[in-house]
Amino acid sequence: MKNAKELGRHIILELYDCPEAALNNIPRLEDSLRRAAEAMGASVVSSSFHQFSPYGASGVVIIQESHLTIHTWPEYRYAAVDIFTCGEIDMEQGVQYLVKALEAKRSDWQLLKRGLGLVRPTGISPSVRPKPY
Amino acid sequence: MKNAKELGRHIILELYDCPEAALNNIPRLEDSLRRAAEAMGASVVSSSFHQFSPYGASGVVIIQESHLTIHTWPEYRYAAVDIFTCGEIDMEQGVQYLVKALEAKRSDWQLLKRGLGLVRPTGISPSVRPKPY
Repeated sequence: MKNAKELGRHIILELYDCPEAALNNIPRLEDSLRRAAEAMGASVVSSSFHQFSPYGASGVVIIQESHLTIHTWPEYRYAAVDIFTCGEIDMEQGVQYLVKALEAKRSDWQLLKRGLGLVRPTGISPSVRPKPY
Repeated sequence: MKNAKELGRHIILELYDCPEAALNNIPRLEDSLRRAAEAMGASVVSSSFHQFSPYGASGVVIIQESHLTIHTWPEYRYAAVDIFTCGEIDMEQGVQYLVKALEAKRSDWQLLKRGLGLVRPTGISPSVRPKPY
């Protein structure tokens, strides 16, 4: 696309070497994500968390400015976090809050820009893509 | 990290040139994401959608295998979709379903592998990262 336009910012955050107990504790995960949203200056709309058997949890916090999600693998001491925003909020505060709250000894992240003409497709199958018109 | 291990797969899907009406219609968006989950062979746990004023919507479908989210900008005829899975499900079916259901004339996507030692950090600030131990 000729005219690129950024509409959202999306952080892919990987948390490593977290205590297993932290990643299998729904109230702690929900509290951590909601507080991370607040730390960014975001407005929480709703949240929904689920415990899976025997290990692991999934959760989402919908914010006025988009969302935060988390999926945990306590057996690997790993959590996959996404922070998606479309407002002028301080995402780094959310990253910092979560790294501390879930006691990650290491973390990595990518910042993706979302919007018009920004994603570089890697594709799965060209069959999915309609022809340009 | 020496030992990389894929735990989840994450599709970043960008839908362009969708009809404005499709992107501002909560029942249609919710139905589309739930059916996309079913098309992949995923099990829907819950869903939550919100309309924003005056335009735009956000929604999430939590599936047993992780989640789908969507954020729409009807004024740009654009929707940002994420499909995150940790099970053996057919993500391409979900992509194909959503491209058709929301009448996207064009789409792009990236496939990200989530897990141990897979993200290449682009970083925001080195201050967030604790030192390796």
